[in-house]
Amino acid sequence: MPKLDLTAPSIDLTRTICDIPSVSDDETALADLIHEAVLALPHLEVYRDGDTIVARTNLGRSQRVAIAGHIDTVPINDNVPTRDVAIDGEPFIWGRGTVDMKAGVAVQLKLAHDLADPRVDLTWMWYDHEEVDADLNGLTRLARTRPDLFEADFAILGEPSNGTVEGGCNGNLRAIVRTHGVRAHSARAWIGENAIHKAAPVLARLADYRPRAILVDGLEYREGLNAVRIDGGIAGNVIPDLCEIEVNYRFAPSRSADEAVAHVKSVFDGFEVDVVDIAPGARPGLDAPLAQEFLAAVGGEPRPKYGWTDVARFSAMGVPAVNYGPGDPHLAHHDEERVPLAQIVDVERGLRAWLT
Amino acid sequence: MPKLDLTAPSIDLTRTICDIPSVSDDETALADLIHEAVLALPHLEVYRDGDTIVARTNLGRSQRVAIAGHIDTVPINDNVPTRDVAIDGEPFIWGRGTVDMKAGVAVQLKLAHDLADPRVDLTWMWYDHEEVDADLNGLTRLARTRPDLFEADFAILGEPSNGTVEGGCNGNLRAIVRTHGVRAHSARAWIGENAIHKAAPVLARLADYRPRAILVDGLEYREGLNAVRIDGGIAGNVIPDLCEIEVNYRFAPSRSADEAVAHVKSVFDGFEVDVVDIAPGARPGLDAPLAQEFLAAVGGEPRPKYGWTDVARFSAMGVPAVNYGPGDPHLAHHDEERVPLAQIVDVERGLRAWLT
Repeated sequence: MPKLDLTAPSIDLTRTICDIPSVSDDETALADLIHEAVLALPHLEVYRDGDTIVARTNLGRSQRVAIAGHIDTVPINDNVPTRDVAIDGEPFIWGRGTVDMKAGVAVQLKLAHDLADPRVDLTWMWYDHEEVDADLNGLTRLARTRPDLFEADFAILGEPSNGTVEGGCNGNLRAIVRTHGVRAHSARAWIGENAIHKAAPVLARLADYRPRAILVDGLEYREGLNAVRIDGGIAGNVIPDLCEIEVNYRFAPSRSADEAVAHVKSVFDGFEVDVVDIAPGARPGLDAPLAQEFLAAVGGEPRPKYGWTDVARFSAMGVPAVNYGPGDPHLAHHDEERVPLAQIVDVERGLRAWLT
Repeated sequence: MPKLDLTAPSIDLTRTICDIPSVSDDETALADLIHEAVLALPHLEVYRDGDTIVARTNLGRSQRVAIAGHIDTVPINDNVPTRDVAIDGEPFIWGRGTVDMKAGVAVQLKLAHDLADPRVDLTWMWYDHEEVDADLNGLTRLARTRPDLFEADFAILGEPSNGTVEGGCNGNLRAIVRTHGVRAHSARAWIGENAIHKAAPVLARLADYRPRAILVDGLEYREGLNAVRIDGGIAGNVIPDLCEIEVNYRFAPSRSADEAVAHVKSVFDGFEVDVVDIAPGARPGLDAPLAQEFLAAVGGEPRPKYGWTDVARFSAMGVPAVNYGPGDPHLAHHDEERVPLAQIVDVERGLRAWLT
């Protein structure tokens, strides 16, 4: 494996790190390269925990900004290695991770190299397991072992936001809704009770559900409630006694975790509901002084972030945080994931201008 | 492995062959023992094809009766080896295969040994892979390679029927109903289309479906339409683009295969329906002269058979066929499968009396 060359342009760095597969649980090769590259930078103090790497300046500035990005991706689907493509004449890098979020990480690595003398102290964080259960997230681990590393006055997550500032994020809840029946031979179905048939009203409630759009601190958050998995059945001649529907609720940052749980339980009233994962959202936090400064420096109208991101983690720790990165979030996880070169350059320029 | 002792009582033979696991695709050990035991009987001509064994008398009688039983079982679930149990003072053999249908096979093996001089020629058939796809069924294979072995004036399948004659059988169809959507990140569900939500009306139609009961040649057949499997979903944060519902339709023997397909397609009108397995039913066939004689000899009121059995295969080949075996068909595939000793003895006595 060649070394990472942080003197290369961030566009080239994007191609390089996208071509190193790092699907969740398989981040070590990329983490090793990042670790090696930042260890070589004398202006940074480096800490590693598993496949999470933290690199900090210690210049005694009055303020500190944390800038973070996850290095894992969702599974590859014939979209690695990257390709250069043009759409309506505009150049893109196409492939898994280009949007979510290795272009953002490439910009961060480039700036971590270049900014030896920023106007605030910087804490760079590159972490593993963001695309899977919150329990496995590298920042969850780090928050337990080294909460001091999260101390900052403001945080920027490089999640894709089309190069504009996206404030806060929706919360994220997953739950299993279960229906139960009684097994029987399907030739004599009347002896049993079909658990899959009993799931009909669960799917009907999901199909009829009209998600809300909620204004929080001036930004409108769209919610969503979806089945993401359904599973039932034993054999082709057996009436099934269990059906499981996994639902995913994305909830506005004005709702607490408890309120989100209560809402899901009320939607599926009368059914067994088992919450398996919950991560509260984060209010936009755009009224913080550093956030205002940052907004003024990079320009554009701030927007709400729909997907859950680790801004919620910083927010819960009292650190105002926003998303700011290259790539269209609608293309995250998409097989045609692709990032415009211009956004990579713009985000690098925006961050560099504000930090120097 | 000890030899099978066909001089032992059929109750003991039931215990012995139930304690030799023979889940579909794993019948060889039991088939080998049966093969060896019947090869030792000079009054039988023996033919083997895979794990299917055919043993025939050739006494020049004017009529021939085929008597058949499958030697495979559905998967074991902590119910092998067998145990002797008593319920309300009545003795049972409990365990996988006792009902479906090794007690019936034990009676057949016993009579194959004892009846060297029956009043009709006999064709005994013990076969594999009955509990899985019709394509894999040992008799499907044999009907292709040696159709001559099916020639008979009447056939008796030893499928569990509580020791009474059950005529004909329902047909059996399996189909996949599919709904399609568009994948998207679940944080922005409005970009995609949820295939699981689209399955709501499929489950609603199944839940609302009222199966018919249809009189065929004096016996009432209960139909059934059931989901036996449902499957959809990619990951906890992805809107799924596919949901599959496998349905099982048990249809009265008065419906043809084409009519059964048309019925299922009309129930799921508007959805993609893919028929994956179909086996037509069989009319009761109780008006055949040998059937009438047999009914008179064993006594009792004939009943309809709900489950699909290989009587349909004989029926389709022009051989009237009935089910007659020990065990309660409601307990077939049940983890508490158990056969009353008295029914094993009664069925052996009934067959022996008629055949000698």
